[in-house]
Amino acid sequence: MMIPESFAVELVPWKEAVALSKDLGECIRGKYHPDLVIAIGRGGYVPGRVVCDSLLITTLTSIKIEHWGEAANCYGEAHIRYPLSVDVEGQDLLVVDDVTDTGKTLIAAIEYLQSLRPGSIKTGVLHHKTTSTFIPDFYAKMVPEWHWIVYPWALHEDLVGFVEKVMTGRSATPGKIRSTLNKRYHMRPGMDDVVFAARELVERGIAEETGDGYRLKNIL
Amino acid sequence: MMIPESFAVELVPWKEAVALSKDLGECIRGKYHPDLVIAIGRGGYVPGRVVCDSLLITTLTSIKIEHWGEAANCYGEAHIRYPLSVDVEGQDLLVVDDVTDTGKTLIAAIEYLQSLRPGSIKTGVLHHKTTSTFIPDFYAKMVPEWHWIVYPWALHEDLVGFVEKVMTGRSATPGKIRSTLNKRYHMRPGMDDVVFAARELVERGIAEETGDGYRLKNIL
Repeated sequence: MMIPESFAVELVPWKEAVALSKDLGECIRGKYHPDLVIAIGRGGYVPGRVVCDSLLITTLTSIKIEHWGEAANCYGEAHIRYPLSVDVEGQDLLVVDDVTDTGKTLIAAIEYLQSLRPGSIKTGVLHHKTTSTFIPDFYAKMVPEWHWIVYPWALHEDLVGFVEKVMTGRSATPGKIRSTLNKRYHMRPGMDDVVFAARELVERGIAEETGDGYRLKNIL
Repeated sequence: MMIPESFAVELVPWKEAVALSKDLGECIRGKYHPDLVIAIGRGGYVPGRVVCDSLLITTLTSIKIEHWGEAANCYGEAHIRYPLSVDVEGQDLLVVDDVTDTGKTLIAAIEYLQSLRPGSIKTGVLHHKTTSTFIPDFYAKMVPEWHWIVYPWALHEDLVGFVEKVMTGRSATPGKIRSTLNKRYHMRPGMDDVVFAARELVERGIAEETGDGYRLKNIL
């Protein structure tokens, strides 16, 4: 899947992300009572914790799934980076993540977990995009029009990628970077967060500071 | 350590918990750059995820530590319930939890992690209570006057314990339960949350519904 040059990005505020996490818990209550909740790292950490509190489940652990291929997106092949450390044979598992986009993350998670011979596996996410080939058992919200979703716990790392995409070899002030982000991705991050991302690009040697802004280095 | 009959309980709202998590990230930035962040389950899941975003670290995993002895408190002996699933030999580790109260959780975590021969271990929490025998390397806020802290991601499970403590064999309405919680613990949970906790006690067979409220069962 190719990422287009311009598309809509939704910055989910904390309040909404928490509400969706609670909604996910409510979706699951009474329908499934897992022995163990498995948060997918790193997007499932906050939803997983909130779902446990909604369902009053104290058994929470995590696995980390990474994607090969292009950095900072979910379109490479998924593989298990950090496996489980406990025996789940015969147990009823609930796997929690933030979003189904292509569905590759949850497909990889289930394939891995099936090999451990659990009793059952069900999946829950905050946003289920209908572009996903995988349909989770539970989701707080369906997303029929594809757009990129930035969760508040990933704001900085996602923003570093977006700021890099809108920067060029010509100097741009933080205000200019922010207005380009708005024009191209329809997002309005805080100015502090834009500066944070630009400074990180400088630290990584990708960008440099100019008198009043930032520009990419080594642009031919 | 005995838990007294009446003490102050602080319900930390989401907004403050997120702000403290970001503050913890700011405390650490520039002072320590871990190879791996380890969230202590379950209190460290949200702070750990936020700290990773502040430090732009993608390597996040978790361990779960439980306490023997009295249920629903942290005063029993701590032991590792879910260990790490990855090799950390030679790596610089950051262990993140919500609070240091007695300090037993982090002491157990460090003892366990030391056995895996990492390069270094540092610890960070949101609230460091000065009652703790263990002093974390980083904390967002020091708590000199001991009180119980309820994090928003543990509100329901903590509240079930507190509601049970204030219920008796005589029927009490949710409003009465809430005012007793306020009198005894100086906390003001939402009425919905009080009802949620009371219903959970009914489901567990500890309490029963009366015409207009709840009472404990099997009180001699």
